[in-house]
Amino acid sequence: MQNTFEQIGAREYTELYDRYAPLTTAVRDLVDISLRTDEDSDTIATATAAIEAVTEMLRAKQVERLPRFQRHEITGRPVVWSNPVIGLRNPLAPPLTVHHDSDGRCWSEFILGQVYEGPPGLVHGGISAMILDQLLGEVATDQLMTPKFTGTITIRYLRGTPLGPLRAEAVVDRTENHKTYARGFISDAQGPTAEAEGVFIMPMWAREQEPK
Amino acid sequence: MQNTFEQIGAREYTELYDRYAPLTTAVRDLVDISLRTDEDSDTIATATAAIEAVTEMLRAKQVERLPRFQRHEITGRPVVWSNPVIGLRNPLAPPLTVHHDSDGRCWSEFILGQVYEGPPGLVHGGISAMILDQLLGEVATDQLMTPKFTGTITIRYLRGTPLGPLRAEAVVDRTENHKTYARGFISDAQGPTAEAEGVFIMPMWAREQEPK
Repeated sequence: MQNTFEQIGAREYTELYDRYAPLTTAVRDLVDISLRTDEDSDTIATATAAIEAVTEMLRAKQVERLPRFQRHEITGRPVVWSNPVIGLRNPLAPPLTVHHDSDGRCWSEFILGQVYEGPPGLVHGGISAMILDQLLGEVATDQLMTPKFTGTITIRYLRGTPLGPLRAEAVVDRTENHKTYARGFISDAQGPTAEAEGVFIMPMWAREQEPK
Repeated sequence: MQNTFEQIGAREYTELYDRYAPLTTAVRDLVDISLRTDEDSDTIATATAAIEAVTEMLRAKQVERLPRFQRHEITGRPVVWSNPVIGLRNPLAPPLTVHHDSDGRCWSEFILGQVYEGPPGLVHGGISAMILDQLLGEVATDQLMTPKFTGTITIRYLRGTPLGPLRAEAVVDRTENHKTYARGFISDAQGPTAEAEGVFIMPMWAREQEPK
């Protein structure tokens, strides 16, 4: 079976993107500087109060949950607002833009800054795992078209992944019944730093809806 | 060998914590609401401008990198400011407080909200992987006392992990030369949702500094 997608019109997408993208970018910049600021206590207290005021302003009207499984009416690409890796409205997401090539490969180029740091100067191993889980999941579900969940994922760390510009790639190895095997890697300019392989499984409720 | 720790005085720790914790909490709340706000374009634009002004205020004085490998002079516990899972000053971190029991086990209880969501209502698989990588790494390094890096980690997803209150635990299975094997899980009130096992390796430069 395939996921049921709500279509989002090109004009509605652009309107929402233009409304929220600058907010999300501004919050990402604030996250970054709030980790590194070295201001005195009074300035920090003033900033904190100003942030709380903005939060109150935005809190007056909110949605319980964001729309899911939308597809752009023209590009046919999934539109994902809330995901912590690729979500257009999630300040935690770098965010990654994932490209799907016609040969089935998917890839993304992105930059990770200090908020994603584990050991000094290096990406937290769990952040690399999270990005690889997303990429392998995207390629295993054919751009999120089919409902499949990660069964098992293994990450091998070849060396430290430096903060800065990085690339990630994933491909499907094979599909056996309701299991899809995918693999991928993260690399810097010198080559791969971490490799992953995973199996993605269609849940029982989805199998029961498949044509016989 | 052991990591070299800078000691942080109790008074300095409290002063820094009291200065930055409210800022970090305020930014976390802003991250959450910025994902879910449904305000009109004018309000969003006003909020965005206000956030950019705060960022400018905090940017005037900043550190290139935060102190690392600090230990509290009284508790002896590591003080971690920037890590995306446990960092006291990182708005991306939930943050987890990791407890180390005298039997060697480590554990944490925490709440994950909508910014950590993957499938509807469920924690993103990569977020679970990130948390397990942190917990297994903490127990394998004896509370970050020894320099060891994740070699390989495998996550098995037993079922979806619901957003909300969760628990994670990790223990060391065994240590062989420079490799420490650890395992752990995430659970909700109904039991484990994801299991992990990993091997953590002391890097060559650290082995060379060990006593013969």
